[in-house]
Amino acid sequence: MINKRLLKDIEFIVELDKMKSILRQTSLINEDRREDDAEHSWHIAIMAMVLEEYSNEKIDICKVIKMLLTHDLVEIYAGDTFCYDKKGNEDKTEREIKAAERIFGILEEDKAKEFRALWDEFEKGETSEALFAASMDRLQPMLNNYNNNGGTWRKFNVAKDDIYKRIAPVRKTSDELWNFVENMIEDAAERGLIQD
Amino acid sequence: MINKRLLKDIEFIVELDKMKSILRQTSLINEDRREDDAEHSWHIAIMAMVLEEYSNEKIDICKVIKMLLTHDLVEIYAGDTFCYDKKGNEDKTEREIKAAERIFGILEEDKAKEFRALWDEFEKGETSEALFAASMDRLQPMLNNYNNNGGTWRKFNVAKDDIYKRIAPVRKTSDELWNFVENMIEDAAERGLIQD
Repeated sequence: MINKRLLKDIEFIVELDKMKSILRQTSLINEDRREDDAEHSWHIAIMAMVLEEYSNEKIDICKVIKMLLTHDLVEIYAGDTFCYDKKGNEDKTEREIKAAERIFGILEEDKAKEFRALWDEFEKGETSEALFAASMDRLQPMLNNYNNNGGTWRKFNVAKDDIYKRIAPVRKTSDELWNFVENMIEDAAERGLIQD
Repeated sequence: MINKRLLKDIEFIVELDKMKSILRQTSLINEDRREDDAEHSWHIAIMAMVLEEYSNEKIDICKVIKMLLTHDLVEIYAGDTFCYDKKGNEDKTEREIKAAERIFGILEEDKAKEFRALWDEFEKGETSEALFAASMDRLQPMLNNYNNNGGTWRKFNVAKDDIYKRIAPVRKTSDELWNFVENMIEDAAERGLIQD
């Protein structure tokens, strides 16, 4: 007999395979296709490992990584909402809360709570870990755009002001990364990859 | 001025985007295409979070996750070698060591060593963390096969004995997971998804 708790865990893991079919707007750097949520989540988790040392404050990197691995699971049911899509973002919270209940609800209650707590902390964006995690989440698509002829910046004519608003968490979390980000955005604007 | 160390980190992160284009043999459960290394690495890292409690021994889950996020980076240059491909596995180690030098060599020496140490520990497979990580790496494609009409088991006519050899790390690391794995393999064999 397999214990029921483990069977729920396996059901959850199998359901997570759907993350590989949730497309984001961001494109790959070396291939002409959009990335999916699983790829993005992996990329930002390993980014956090690489960039941890630039955090102004000491952070619990393990928690940051766990947040990044789980922060997009709600999109299995709620879909990916493009960050510059104002209409789509109106009911985003409501859709994602329902999705969180559904996806974490596959697990036994104590484990569901543990995973949900990571997602809630990420969404609130108040702790040093949540801010660092948000910085990774927002920097990665910008690196892809910068290295991919402007990517979604050009495709959707995103204004420089909106890019600065989107990347704001980096300013709160790392002076060194913020310096890098400012340089990158200004250089992208000069090269015509971003509209002024 | 951006510090040189950070620029190397960014170069590394941009290079890692190539993981999204390295195809594995395993297929997705809900979509008719092969998964890539980034997707796989994400899936097994989050699996480790979910299944940690079934480890026989107390493990450092943070180290396990870091290993899983990085263990396939060498495939950016060495390619994915299918686990049941005997010829491809003959020179795998040599190809992957060269690739490790190249990918981690992008980073400053101290950081390169830190990442390389994770890969070396995973490859040696001796510590509790490396064994648990290997268990996740091997269980995930089996879950996909089991939930996808036999997947690569049927496509490549893989023998039951070879599957048991491949999944052996689980036996060393978790009694509960081993019980689950045995049940799954025997059930798959009964249902004709695996040849006896």
